[in-house]
Amino acid sequence: MAQSLPHSPLARPLPALPPLAGVRFGAAAAGIRYTGRTDLVMAEFAPGTTVAGVFTRSKCPGAPVDWCRAALPQGEARALVVNAGNANVFTGRAGFEATQANAADAARLVGCAASQVFLASTGVIGEILPYQKISDALPGLYATLSETGWADAARGIMTTDTFPKAAVRETTIAGTTVRIQGIAKGSGMVAPDMATMLCFVATDAALPAAVLQPLLAAGAARSFNRTTVDSDTSTSDMVLLFATGQASNPPVESETDPALAEFAAALDSLLLELALLVVRDGEGATKLIRIQVTGATSDDSAQRVAMAVANSPLVKTAIAGEDANWGRVVMAVGKSGEPANRDTLSIAIGGVWIARNGTVVPDYDETPVVAHMKGSEIEIEIDLGLGNGTGVAWSCDLTHGYIDINGSYRS
Amino acid sequence: MAQSLPHSPLARPLPALPPLAGVRFGAAAAGIRYTGRTDLVMAEFAPGTTVAGVFTRSKCPGAPVDWCRAALPQGEARALVVNAGNANVFTGRAGFEATQANAADAARLVGCAASQVFLASTGVIGEILPYQKISDALPGLYATLSETGWADAARGIMTTDTFPKAAVRETTIAGTTVRIQGIAKGSGMVAPDMATMLCFVATDAALPAAVLQPLLAAGAARSFNRTTVDSDTSTSDMVLLFATGQASNPPVESETDPALAEFAAALDSLLLELALLVVRDGEGATKLIRIQVTGATSDDSAQRVAMAVANSPLVKTAIAGEDANWGRVVMAVGKSGEPANRDTLSIAIGGVWIARNGTVVPDYDETPVVAHMKGSEIEIEIDLGLGNGTGVAWSCDLTHGYIDINGSYRS
Repeated sequence: MAQSLPHSPLARPLPALPPLAGVRFGAAAAGIRYTGRTDLVMAEFAPGTTVAGVFTRSKCPGAPVDWCRAALPQGEARALVVNAGNANVFTGRAGFEATQANAADAARLVGCAASQVFLASTGVIGEILPYQKISDALPGLYATLSETGWADAARGIMTTDTFPKAAVRETTIAGTTVRIQGIAKGSGMVAPDMATMLCFVATDAALPAAVLQPLLAAGAARSFNRTTVDSDTSTSDMVLLFATGQASNPPVESETDPALAEFAAALDSLLLELALLVVRDGEGATKLIRIQVTGATSDDSAQRVAMAVANSPLVKTAIAGEDANWGRVVMAVGKSGEPANRDTLSIAIGGVWIARNGTVVPDYDETPVVAHMKGSEIEIEIDLGLGNGTGVAWSCDLTHGYIDINGSYRS
Repeated sequence: MAQSLPHSPLARPLPALPPLAGVRFGAAAAGIRYTGRTDLVMAEFAPGTTVAGVFTRSKCPGAPVDWCRAALPQGEARALVVNAGNANVFTGRAGFEATQANAADAARLVGCAASQVFLASTGVIGEILPYQKISDALPGLYATLSETGWADAARGIMTTDTFPKAAVRETTIAGTTVRIQGIAKGSGMVAPDMATMLCFVATDAALPAAVLQPLLAAGAARSFNRTTVDSDTSTSDMVLLFATGQASNPPVESETDPALAEFAAALDSLLLELALLVVRDGEGATKLIRIQVTGATSDDSAQRVAMAVANSPLVKTAIAGEDANWGRVVMAVGKSGEPANRDTLSIAIGGVWIARNGTVVPDYDETPVVAHMKGSEIEIEIDLGLGNGTGVAWSCDLTHGYIDINGSYRS
């Protein structure tokens, strides 16, 4: 259970989460799987709140993912209901019925259409969701929703997480101050069993759903899609972005409006902070790894090389062992399938170029690299020497802790 | 070092390796990296021996892979030289010069062209191969070559292997009895550091290189290319097949000649046995896993689904924990990116169908599955319910042993 896992050594403290106009959060203990902790989270959004979402690419997504995908085109949200402990995945017709029932429950409380209710579930796959427990708990939970409920929500959605995760930004749109605030859970990108990645972000900006969606998609591509823990893909991953409009900024019609530049940058930065918090809580992680690729034939190619290195078990175990084993980086570049030329390939660790143009540098002194490997943040740079494409990925090391968590978790 | 690793619980005894006409093997201690063990292997083949080869798909292959690829089109082989302890990878011009020098050394001893010498190296990446040590050791080694040297050769090419690997077949071509015999090393498909996969097979059949090559390519596709330990790809993997012609079978002109059917089946079976021996020695492996996929839209699609499951760290850790966590199989199917429909997907473990058509079977009794999970050979069946495509993959579990070996190996 989450409670018994040791705290990640890469954990960050939960920031202060002040009220954000138009959002009320709360958490309750519905007893879905865990005892002695909250496992059900609800949010109510002000009328007129718009919504955007990005979802797992899994071909076998959970019922709540199907539900949200169907609700998204309307672009309006009044409520969010999230449970931890049961993913409602691979549950057939019963899974669909559970989403219908709980969306109807929340809609009744809030006074909205069921299609304005967004749902997420995280936990064990293949067990029927006891949705009646959620139905029973929702009225009491709804009565406790509060503008100060964010931290409770960040804790209530945790599964194998060892610390709650949130991030906050303040920015402007055409001179109006707006805020963005989000919570996330996950200790993989990743793990389906109990470690699905969920992220819920709200802003008081007034932005139509058609503007919100491309902003979120671009931001997620530059953050969550560049991180990995173990290469596995959850059936339930989602990032939802809600805009309550309470900041009353001047209208914005297009995501390319220059008035949005500062907001888009703040959103990107918040999403990356949340994504890296998830990597920092990667199952068993003791080191955060950043892989920077330059000199590729294209940005897409560079990104695939970066992800191949980020996902390599041999690179990740070497880093766990504090071994500056750059030969494994060569191996991972080679296995990516992307254009690479051994004789133009250069590799640096901790800012020290170890190999240049296909061979180890003369008089390579491992001392500063050895010192870097003992730190908690590892930097790997790869120059393919072929073109101008660049990419970056973040990962964590692969340790005994990962085996402990995943080799004995369900039982 | 290899010597200090615990023996794999999945190890198989080395079979008797009788002489095979036209092949003489031997091993010596050249002191390349290890002490107190052999690390240099040589074979001499009778004049007229033909050769076929398949190699790593890495974009950053080692110098010996380049050497063999260049030599292969001539289709003739008189010698093989293999060293363990240094992979001669990412060593630039020095790597090329080392291959030239050692091929010339062997050619001088045997009395052949350098292009009839095949080379393989396995070990650490990025360190200059001390080829003079090999040059110095080869004459003494050559003097000891013997038709009974197979077992010594199987041991001399080991790195992180915990047991030597070999397989033997007897078959016929057009009524003539022929033999096939091979050795392999590797404890990953896989690992570049010390666990490159190398496989050397010889037959006394008389077969032109143009017939040998498609037979080997097809056999490797059905064996080595269907196995994985950790998804990583060595810079040095190779399978070489030598045919000495000493059995004097009737001539065969094409790989599709019906006279070759029995030989091809025996070769396939031998290659699969060797590939599975490598998986059995997978770093830290305690269980051999077979994943059978049916009902895919094509065989290629089925194979990609099988490999996605075979490579999933979450599936592999669950099996290490003896947890029949079929939800992780659903996850891995979903992440493969291949056509799949949650509502037609069925999963069995140990022959027991746990989920059918997208939901757990009514009254699923976990008892026989729990018993199966305690065994050393795990069977997973996946029916996608979409078409007639089938595929199969073999893998091993992911345990603390893998982290031990790879998280602290080089130091």
